[in-house]
Amino acid sequence: MNFRQKWLQAAQRKNSLLCVGIDPAEAAQRHGHQMPEGVSKTEWTRHIIDAVAPYTAGIKLNRNYFKDITREDMRSLNDRIHEQGMISIDDSKLADIGDTNDAGIYHAKQEGFDAITYAPFPGNTLQAGSQAQAHGVGLIPLVLMSNPEYRLMKNALINGEPLYRFLAKQSAEAQADGIVIGAPSPGNHITLEEIADVARILPEALVLVPGIGAQGGDIAPILGLFGPRTIANVGRAIIYAKDPAQQARSYRDLITQAHQGVPTGR
Amino acid sequence: MNFRQKWLQAAQRKNSLLCVGIDPAEAAQRHGHQMPEGVSKTEWTRHIIDAVAPYTAGIKLNRNYFKDITREDMRSLNDRIHEQGMISIDDSKLADIGDTNDAGIYHAKQEGFDAITYAPFPGNTLQAGSQAQAHGVGLIPLVLMSNPEYRLMKNALINGEPLYRFLAKQSAEAQADGIVIGAPSPGNHITLEEIADVARILPEALVLVPGIGAQGGDIAPILGLFGPRTIANVGRAIIYAKDPAQQARSYRDLITQAHQGVPTGR
Repeated sequence: MNFRQKWLQAAQRKNSLLCVGIDPAEAAQRHGHQMPEGVSKTEWTRHIIDAVAPYTAGIKLNRNYFKDITREDMRSLNDRIHEQGMISIDDSKLADIGDTNDAGIYHAKQEGFDAITYAPFPGNTLQAGSQAQAHGVGLIPLVLMSNPEYRLMKNALINGEPLYRFLAKQSAEAQADGIVIGAPSPGNHITLEEIADVARILPEALVLVPGIGAQGGDIAPILGLFGPRTIANVGRAIIYAKDPAQQARSYRDLITQAHQGVPTGR
Repeated sequence: MNFRQKWLQAAQRKNSLLCVGIDPAEAAQRHGHQMPEGVSKTEWTRHIIDAVAPYTAGIKLNRNYFKDITREDMRSLNDRIHEQGMISIDDSKLADIGDTNDAGIYHAKQEGFDAITYAPFPGNTLQAGSQAQAHGVGLIPLVLMSNPEYRLMKNALINGEPLYRFLAKQSAEAQADGIVIGAPSPGNHITLEEIADVARILPEALVLVPGIGAQGGDIAPILGLFGPRTIANVGRAIIYAKDPAQQARSYRDLITQAHQGVPTGR
């Protein structure tokens, strides 16, 4: 079963399009949102996984917060995610070439992940796609990021068309399982036209959508186009809440309502 | 002392511009170049560090091969690198936004690295530069990659100029300590004009150059423009050799000869 099928099954099983993004900041790392002091990162993460599981179809672990974890601990977290009927995404944003990307995907597989994110800076989406397929790991390239600086990047011209469309076409050609599109909001540059454009180029792919919750993005237009292929990611608004389970349920319900409220494109 | 100064001192101390790139492939990972079976990755890496140290100014650890290492083990490797008078680079190719890049840099600092590589896909070089400075870690953005698929990317037009030049200017504005330029070779697309162009935009920055050795790139034109600011990276041709020390000495000598053979641009 490929990652696309795994997601659609998990979403149906959980009756949820919610994916919880876990990024455990250490106490020394920043002020504000962080893990409590003196707590093991693996234990804290397992606690979040268990709390949100009833309302959640996927877990995304942000690799830049997990650089200090052993393979055994990562495996045990992924085992827990799977035992609870969810899928797991390694948010590594791979951005290398040849054997190095292959090494990143190999590690993700060893650790028990179902998919990995990929930053197509080197332009090698086709190669990364075939490497991911060989390892049985889903590939999720970035296509539309929501940070302000990406406005210039997405409109860079390649063969006379904007970069984001070039990347969407590369993702389609590579048979990527999904892509990343930031949630549009009044505060960012992502337009409904761009999302519709990408949806046309990738009529079967999943879409991983960060930027909901704390970042205030609107998931409805994406749900309208991608339906249950939408992996709606919420991070801090859930994991640092007093009651992560209750917050996960709220977001699950919000996403379901938004989904029911829009006409589906497919 | 910033990373630029650390490199120049190490290069002088070691009388070498050689950086050894270590990417320990596991036996299960691929056929061909790999670690011997049954050997600890940390021990194997320490063995390479010790072997090449007399001829080497820097060590680059490729993060996609070290995803399973603890902070303690990574620290012990970086301690060893520093005890031997070398600098260490975390080749993570960070490609994320905001707090996530900050987390990656925080981890690099905790582990004892002097610098980290960065893939400017999200366009946020300025932010990454100030985050790296706040942590006291050098930032090394990718500017000219040598893989064939990057030819289209480097020529994507932003504000009417090619992407690679836009990225070089962003790196200059961010006061990045260095940039990455692949070694030009008859088999790749990197031109001497592009290298000269980037050298003019960044008259003080270091340049990390992969693609020497196994990949057959020519370091001479870069040495002519960047002089001792060149971090000449050789990976597999050294680490998987029967005698890594002897190979490191050969490459150190080759690089020194190439340096003496070209008129210096500065």
